[in-house]
This record gives sequence, structure tokens and C-alpha cells, in this order.
Amino acid sequence: MISPEIEQLMMNKKKTMVIPADNVANVMKENPLEHALLVLSQVGYSSIPVLDKDDRFVGLLTLTDVVSKMMELDEIDSDNLSQFTVADVMQTDIGTITEKSDLEDILHLLVDANYLPVLDEKGLFKGIITRREILKAVNHTFHEFNKETKIEPKILLQVSADQ
Amino acid sequence: MISPEIEQLMMNKKKTMVIPADNVANVMKENPLEHALLVLSQVGYSSIPVLDKDDRFVGLLTLTDVVSKMMELDEIDSDNLSQFTVADVMQTDIGTITEKSDLEDILHLLVDANYLPVLDEKGLFKGIITRREILKAVNHTFHEFNKETKIEPKILLQVSADQ
Repeated sequence: MISPEIEQLMMNKKKTMVIPADNVANVMKENPLEHALLVLSQVGYSSIPVLDKDDRFVGLLTLTDVVSKMMELDEIDSDNLSQFTVADVMQTDIGTITEKSDLEDILHLLVDANYLPVLDEKGLFKGIITRREILKAVNHTFHEFNKETKIEPKILLQVSADQ
Repeated sequence: MISPEIEQLMMNKKKTMVIPADNVANVMKENPLEHALLVLSQVGYSSIPVLDKDDRFVGLLTLTDVVSKMMELDEIDSDNLSQFTVADVMQTDIGTITEKSDLEDILHLLVDANYLPVLDEKGLFKGIITRREILKAVNHTFHEFNKETKIEPKILLQVSADQ
């Protein structure tokens, strides 16, 4: 379990932790792979969320997977990419969270993922939480913790007494 | 400043934080871009350190940069990739650290980078510190901090008194 004081400090940054769906580039699972490669190349990210027609999250498309498919086809050639769709190459075994997920679960999942898709109860894509935003919150927490121990030593006494 | 208690907990994991150079795939700056794309595709990473002939770190090659170059050449075609070298495309403005770098600097740099090259005083490539390993250490720290407040409340009292 994460201590309540640390969780509280991390949660100070919660509002800016989730990057909302409107600010996250995505592709549709029916998109031809050639189109998806163009999008990935333009946004400059190494992976991108895949949605279905109803805005439900269905997987992640990574640049590595597209390039591997390309090289599998005909050494390094992409002419045939357009015969495949995003659904043919995307990864579907992806850890996701909801807006109510525990910080502990989020931190655990981010050990193995650059970002986590945030879904609502219907599976609709609401945004992402990235390692970048979490690391910003960690920096904030590590610094504030020090400040708080200076300013309010009684908080620490209470913690000890309660446990 | 990061509190000494938190720094100490993070440093418990220091030995496993650095992935040594021997375990990190790399490319040489003289390599043809086509070869580099093969290596990147095989290792499955979205970027890779670039070294010179003396094992000095000179930059990072990202899959995005190779694919962008490829598309720039002739829509999506890679036939001409072999006329370019890694040095033509690599990024050189990369934050690096040494084995003596402060945790604070490391955490700050990792907000904007997936991993940091670790160099010695001569610029030789010694390994990398990744967000993944740092997040493992953060998880450890957040949990241990809680345990320590339970087991040894006096530690906290001392901290408060010292400050």
C-alpha cells in the first residue's frame, strides 16, 4: 500500500495527469496501414491508440509493428501496406485504466507501458495517462514531501501515532 | 531538494537502475540507414543509442526519424535508404548523465526522455537509465516509505526534529 501522504501529494497533480482524448491522435481499426503509418510519422509518436467507430478503445498500433509488417512483406518495401488494415497489426493485450483506478495500479502498469489508455465503464476512450505526467507528479511529490516535513512536522507525528 | 529519506530509498535500487552497455543494442554512426532500420526493427525499440568507433556516445536514432526520412524520399519507399548513414538522421541534442549524477537531475531529465545514456568522463557509453527502472524504484520507494513509517516511527521524529 502507498502511504496516504504520498498518495495525497501525487493526487495534487491528478487534474493534469490525464491527457484528454481530444488532444490524443488516434487511428481507426479499419484504416489502411499505409494511412496509419502516415499519421504515426506525422505525430512523431512511436505508438497510437486504435478506436472503433463508436470511439471504443480496441488496441494500440506501434510504429515498430507497422515497420515489421512492411519488412516482412518484401524486404524493406511498403507498397503493399495498403492491403492491410490497422486491425491486422495492432496489439490488443493492453493494460487500461478508468478514471477511478488506484494510483498503485497506475504506477504498476506504467512499469511496462509508455502510457495507459483511460476508459469509461462502456469502454469509451477518454484519454491517456503517460509516464511523462506521472514522472512530473513524482518530482512534485518528492519535493513537496520535503517541504511538508519542514513546515508541518506534526503531520508526521500523527502518521506514526495512527499506525 | 529531494528529502534524504526518499533519496535513500530510491538509491536502494541504484544497482539495478543502470542497464549496462553490454545489454543495450546500439548502432554506429557510419552504418547505412537501411542496416539501422533492420536493427531497430529486430530489437523492437523505438530508439537506439549511436556510438562512434571509440564507443563514445554521439546521439540517438529513433524509428520515427528513419521512417520520416524514408517517406521524404519517395512517398513510402525505402529503396534509397542505403545511401544515407545513421549520422544523417540521428538526434544529437540528447540529455546525458554520468554515474555520479544526482537523482534530482535524473528525474528531471526523464520527464522528457524515455531513457538517459550514462557516459563516463571521456564520453564513453556505459549504459542507460530508463523510465521503466526509475518507475520500479519509485514503486519500491512509495511502498517502503509506508513500511518504514510503520516499523520505525522514530525515524520520522528524528527527521522532524532535524529540520
